[in-house]
Amino acid sequence: MYKNYQEFIKSNLKLDMSRGKPSPEQLDLALSLLNETGISDQIKSSGTDCRNYGVQLGLPEVREFFASLLDVSMDQVVVEGNSSLALMHDVIVFALLYGTAGHSPWVSEKPITFICPVPGYDRHFSILEAFGIKMINVPLLEDGPDMDIVESLVSKDDSIKGMWCVPKYSNPTGTVYSADVINRLAAMNTAAADFRLFWDDAYHFHHLTDERIAIPNILDLCQTAGNPDRAIVFASTSKMTFAGSGLAILASSMANIDWWQKCVSVRTIGPDKLNQLRHLHFFQDSVSVDSLMDQHRAILKPKFDIVDAVFEEYLGKIEGVSWSKPLGGYFINLITPAGLAKRTIELAKDAGIVLTPAGATFPYGVDPEDKHIRIAPSFPSLDEIKLAAQGVSLSLLHAIEDQKDNIK
Amino acid sequence: MYKNYQEFIKSNLKLDMSRGKPSPEQLDLALSLLNETGISDQIKSSGTDCRNYGVQLGLPEVREFFASLLDVSMDQVVVEGNSSLALMHDVIVFALLYGTAGHSPWVSEKPITFICPVPGYDRHFSILEAFGIKMINVPLLEDGPDMDIVESLVSKDDSIKGMWCVPKYSNPTGTVYSADVINRLAAMNTAAADFRLFWDDAYHFHHLTDERIAIPNILDLCQTAGNPDRAIVFASTSKMTFAGSGLAILASSMANIDWWQKCVSVRTIGPDKLNQLRHLHFFQDSVSVDSLMDQHRAILKPKFDIVDAVFEEYLGKIEGVSWSKPLGGYFINLITPAGLAKRTIELAKDAGIVLTPAGATFPYGVDPEDKHIRIAPSFPSLDEIKLAAQGVSLSLLHAIEDQKDNIK
Repeated sequence: MYKNYQEFIKSNLKLDMSRGKPSPEQLDLALSLLNETGISDQIKSSGTDCRNYGVQLGLPEVREFFASLLDVSMDQVVVEGNSSLALMHDVIVFALLYGTAGHSPWVSEKPITFICPVPGYDRHFSILEAFGIKMINVPLLEDGPDMDIVESLVSKDDSIKGMWCVPKYSNPTGTVYSADVINRLAAMNTAAADFRLFWDDAYHFHHLTDERIAIPNILDLCQTAGNPDRAIVFASTSKMTFAGSGLAILASSMANIDWWQKCVSVRTIGPDKLNQLRHLHFFQDSVSVDSLMDQHRAILKPKFDIVDAVFEEYLGKIEGVSWSKPLGGYFINLITPAGLAKRTIELAKDAGIVLTPAGATFPYGVDPEDKHIRIAPSFPSLDEIKLAAQGVSLSLLHAIEDQKDNIK
Repeated sequence: MYKNYQEFIKSNLKLDMSRGKPSPEQLDLALSLLNETGISDQIKSSGTDCRNYGVQLGLPEVREFFASLLDVSMDQVVVEGNSSLALMHDVIVFALLYGTAGHSPWVSEKPITFICPVPGYDRHFSILEAFGIKMINVPLLEDGPDMDIVESLVSKDDSIKGMWCVPKYSNPTGTVYSADVINRLAAMNTAAADFRLFWDDAYHFHHLTDERIAIPNILDLCQTAGNPDRAIVFASTSKMTFAGSGLAILASSMANIDWWQKCVSVRTIGPDKLNQLRHLHFFQDSVSVDSLMDQHRAILKPKFDIVDAVFEEYLGKIEGVSWSKPLGGYFINLITPAGLAKRTIELAKDAGIVLTPAGATFPYGVDPEDKHIRIAPSFPSLDEIKLAAQGVSLSLLHAIEDQKDNIK
């Protein structure tokens, strides 16, 4: 155990904790996918030669499989490409240029605004910033976004067309939206008739406890509330099989799926169906999915535990410092006293630890109070994580000391 | 041999010749790609774990491989996704929403216009139509687009931002652009500073003779002419390995590649690198690519020959009827007397043969003289193709008789 920052900096660590990447050990869990030879017998799935063009929305049996996992009907599911981020991006592009089903193109209605619960996922915000879509921060509370603020905003402002939601094990706080919050999101009155919830269910299967938390089905609730086309759900197998070679999934109302199909068929003749077949072979059924995710958890949980233990030891009694204790997902959110996140990240960098840039979990990269640090414990080894957690702790303690000195 | 349409219609044929899909025999040529097990040893290519996130522009060694095939430098090549159509679509989306490098977004400059050599590829036109981009038809002559018209248009009208080109074995005519035409395209003055050639080199490797026609390198010519950022080249392996699971390639100037990277990194964290590794293993080198394409040719050439022979027999002496004799690519363009393409396609349909819809090879689906029929001989078997060519011929002859009767 290092006692102070000066001692730590001498250890010459070189560690990247900036992104939520799976570790090599996790990727090894899907190694049989790489060597999947059985699919050559199955290239004529559903009467289609899966090697050829076509099947715009994904192979029926693969859509069926994810439909059952996500508890929706097969018609409501699209399986396409290797990146759910790309699906989110493209929904926004199509909304900008075509408008959502039955509505005007967003480009003809500028300015467009999105509600962004904060802290949140930097790549969500990057898409909006790139397209000049205005972002409004709304605090993420213990049980989800502050719904009093959300309801007040969307009921009055018809430029608000969308809202990012990571409803389970949210990036970076691990927040799980409560049933009450989800119900209110589904039922609230919105001034814009074409308001959409961008429901990024990135961590649906990524539990860190044996509780396997389930949240209410947003598509059902929207339907019941009379807002059937409100939510578009995204998921992927990137953190289940291979991060770069998984499957991306979109689920929504039939009207939204028809709209998606119309838009996407201008773009491509169809997805890589062979990779879909590979995944179907590999996953088999929901029991084996659970078992796979248990194996991921067995690798990930000790990493989260060691960060928590180190933080507890170094920072447990420090005023103004706290951190999330997520039950799933990929991140820990470390909260520093106001004004110290950036400085802490700089000090950690000088000590050889690359963290997610300060402010990244806020729109425009601006954390107004400069106090959030996203910790991504998944990729490094357990020993490295332990060292890195010490380094981050000592960097923060050093920043706190500096601040005290400056006040004196 | 059927003697007339009435006799043919009784044969109860059921054939789809509407799309340029590879046949199962062609897809079998890449079967070892499906069972590629060797890549598990190579997942750490170039120091990257190819299973994980990242490597935005494609694996360096895969970019290098296609760079050498396309005779450009590795820095100028992106390998990404399974669909070159998607790359074309996304270049247009990025140009609409961001503008091309250093220029205004096209959406802020409406109306935008493209030059479309006709007949051409329907999916090119569909993208433009979907986004409300105006299309101007320019005749495709024996040696490429009518350059007098093209030069006159682009020099005066700064709303003309782009032009589709399929420079080799063009869809559907098989036209190969001459060196003179390509030079003029590279060097011509354009009123719009951000004019772009969308250079769809879809049939670069798809020869039907042993001549293996090569055309001048458009990127070099644009560079020499002082228009380094004018051309964006697209290619894919869809008709070399698997139509739905191939690799898509984009090549252009460094400035355009930088622009592409900036735009696409908002969309996704990276392409499927394992499929890239698979392809690298399968292709090996340019000699084996040539040998693979020779095998494709051995399957395709007899199909083109039989169509030509049947057309010669039935239609060879019919006034106003002609057809292309392509040296590569996937299509034969059948030209009917004016006003008979649509009727011929209807008659063929009644006889069980689905052809590409009339007008499809023209913007907005309108063939002004109604005389072009795209024949796609690749997918059906040789016997089926022979029957279908008879059916198309008899349908056309029947339409000609009907027309004569009506005139009487």
